[in-house]
Amino acid sequence: MKDIDGGITAPRGFRAAGLSRIALVVSEETANAAGVLTTNKVQAAPVRLCRARLENRSAQAIVVNSGNANACTGEQGAKDAEKMAELAAQALGLDREAVLVCSTGVIGVPLPMEKIEKGIQEAAAVLSADGGVDAARAIMTTDTVPKTEAVEIAIDGKPVRIGGMAKGAGMIRPDMATMLAFLTTDAGVAPEALQECLSGSVRKSFNRISVDGDMSTNDTVLFLANGKAGNDVLDKQHPEWDLFAGAVEHITRELALMIVRDGEGATKFVTVQTKGAVSDGDALKVCRAVSDSMLVKTSWFGGDPNWGRVIDAAGYSGAELKEELVDIYYNDTIAVSNGCVAGPGVAGAVENAIAGDEFTLTIDLKLGDGTHTVYTCDCSYDYVKINSEYTS
Amino acid sequence: MKDIDGGITAPRGFRAAGLSRIALVVSEETANAAGVLTTNKVQAAPVRLCRARLENRSAQAIVVNSGNANACTGEQGAKDAEKMAELAAQALGLDREAVLVCSTGVIGVPLPMEKIEKGIQEAAAVLSADGGVDAARAIMTTDTVPKTEAVEIAIDGKPVRIGGMAKGAGMIRPDMATMLAFLTTDAGVAPEALQECLSGSVRKSFNRISVDGDMSTNDTVLFLANGKAGNDVLDKQHPEWDLFAGAVEHITRELALMIVRDGEGATKFVTVQTKGAVSDGDALKVCRAVSDSMLVKTSWFGGDPNWGRVIDAAGYSGAELKEELVDIYYNDTIAVSNGCVAGPGVAGAVENAIAGDEFTLTIDLKLGDGTHTVYTCDCSYDYVKINSEYTS
Repeated sequence: MKDIDGGITAPRGFRAAGLSRIALVVSEETANAAGVLTTNKVQAAPVRLCRARLENRSAQAIVVNSGNANACTGEQGAKDAEKMAELAAQALGLDREAVLVCSTGVIGVPLPMEKIEKGIQEAAAVLSADGGVDAARAIMTTDTVPKTEAVEIAIDGKPVRIGGMAKGAGMIRPDMATMLAFLTTDAGVAPEALQECLSGSVRKSFNRISVDGDMSTNDTVLFLANGKAGNDVLDKQHPEWDLFAGAVEHITRELALMIVRDGEGATKFVTVQTKGAVSDGDALKVCRAVSDSMLVKTSWFGGDPNWGRVIDAAGYSGAELKEELVDIYYNDTIAVSNGCVAGPGVAGAVENAIAGDEFTLTIDLKLGDGTHTVYTCDCSYDYVKINSEYTS
Repeated sequence: MKDIDGGITAPRGFRAAGLSRIALVVSEETANAAGVLTTNKVQAAPVRLCRARLENRSAQAIVVNSGNANACTGEQGAKDAEKMAELAAQALGLDREAVLVCSTGVIGVPLPMEKIEKGIQEAAAVLSADGGVDAARAIMTTDTVPKTEAVEIAIDGKPVRIGGMAKGAGMIRPDMATMLAFLTTDAGVAPEALQECLSGSVRKSFNRISVDGDMSTNDTVLFLANGKAGNDVLDKQHPEWDLFAGAVEHITRELALMIVRDGEGATKFVTVQTKGAVSDGDALKVCRAVSDSMLVKTSWFGGDPNWGRVIDAAGYSGAELKEELVDIYYNDTIAVSNGCVAGPGVAGAVENAIAGDEFTLTIDLKLGDGTHTVYTCDCSYDYVKINSEYTS
């Protein structure tokens, strides 16, 4: 597996463009399509559109606007999402059924359709096989850097490329939150296998990150496979399926980690790992309670390990737990042994362990074999600043 | 019901003292005792001690230290909690089984027993029938004001007084969190009725507040009734039971609201009210999701109604919800009607509604009769400052 440049336009047969808060991704030919969409009961109009379109398991283009979520916009919102598809289809010479639509931004405000129309036309005019990074930049909201990733592998002896881009920053929690991610590949992949591969990868990547515990109305991950590489169509029977699935997992994981590293106001990247739980589900509960706790996250920002707040969150997580068994590590330094401070010199050692930009917190419940991992960040003044000033 | 001064020493037969982070509350005679303790699976040593002692349903004194939670301190912690009871018993000439113990502060550090011993002796020396406010001050951690409340009612034609004090500020969420509250009354109250009355009042007060969504290892509410008023012993058969229970509810509610108003860094007090849910349980889910959402709380701090974040949180709360039915009000101003912005002038009107220090947010799901209310606050820079600097 070789890292390559270009993001979503690294795979052959894809062009993209991004400007004026509009991104376009277009395949030369109809691609097999898969998607994972928010489970929030309040769902943006474009999410509903994608859910309907994805029943066909194929698409040829994606149009994205940032700045306005087109959520809680009623019938007008549904019409506007359809109109976005139609405008993109016209500009690209496609059927509008072949266009998927995503939006991200403020909730409850009608889309500025004149701007969107103009943006789509301008973007269509500059589509390029090098447009992946421009597209990644166009979908940013409070993100500070564009997020792209691409790799090349060989399938049936032929080079196959997979590319991706994402935006995140705030409203991020497991089960995805104001987060959009797009993957492309020139591999030929059977539709069901493509969906399964995407769903599995999302579970292990975007569903394991948390910035602030909020889940949005607009979360969407889409994956287009156009078959340009000329490999035998991939499915789970193909001898090199695991190689392909592993590469997809790599891309989603890298993008997910980029989202956390660029979390709103984040200054530290933290891997929260729970083991020894009675089940994986219980381990997940502990990871979430710890990584969603504002008391824990603000103490990290202060450079203060404060393991008391960690064990406290584990205690109310709902997971089975025996206080007198719990061990807690910061990187390789044990801080808590059997529910109590591990020794007299612990505070200083642990402060050193978390002084850097990244550290791993391990909570061992010593009850069973359940494990889970969540990637999260601290909470700083800037999180409050960004979110008290981001206008409705 | 008449408001009176004096907090926990307003009822006759109670003395209190507070200095050097130690508070003492003592009844002249053995009192019936009730308590509500944290449901966190990680529980501080004093919580375990209180749970055991309360099986007798009687007590004569309470000793409280602030600054150290005596949580996650293992066997030493259990011994230290017992030692605190013993030291207080010696200073007061009581049996140590008659002393309840509470601690609040940093987790995982052994109690500084020399300081505690000295503090208990000094406090015992200045016990006074006017000591209620001093005691309330001694239990403060990041609180900025002492919290006391007292009322007088008549039972059997005799004046009966009920007093209370509390500390809170951070780690506050429904089901109580680093929060201690103490109630006293000179009424005679049967032990089972006292417990039932306290549990019911806690459900409607301390369990309906949220500062940051964290629940602590040390939450404790204790209630002592010493019978000095000479009324017929109160239980649910007593004709004036409802009057007494209502007065207790008033005290706990006032103390709970004081905790939210003094929430760490809080600049706004917000009543989050959900109605029209399919059940009260669903209404609670919506109230909690909204009042725990950092995105919602930081937008309030910015003076930005941002109802999109409110409906988003309702959407992921787990409650049954039809987006196209949801109404949202800020005070009496409708912001969202049937899932969409209520009209063109809404933004300005709603901004005015939330410009003050207090407002009520009402979410009407229009599906059933379920209701719930939570009292919460915004999240400011100061919350991050306080919690990143509060040392472990």
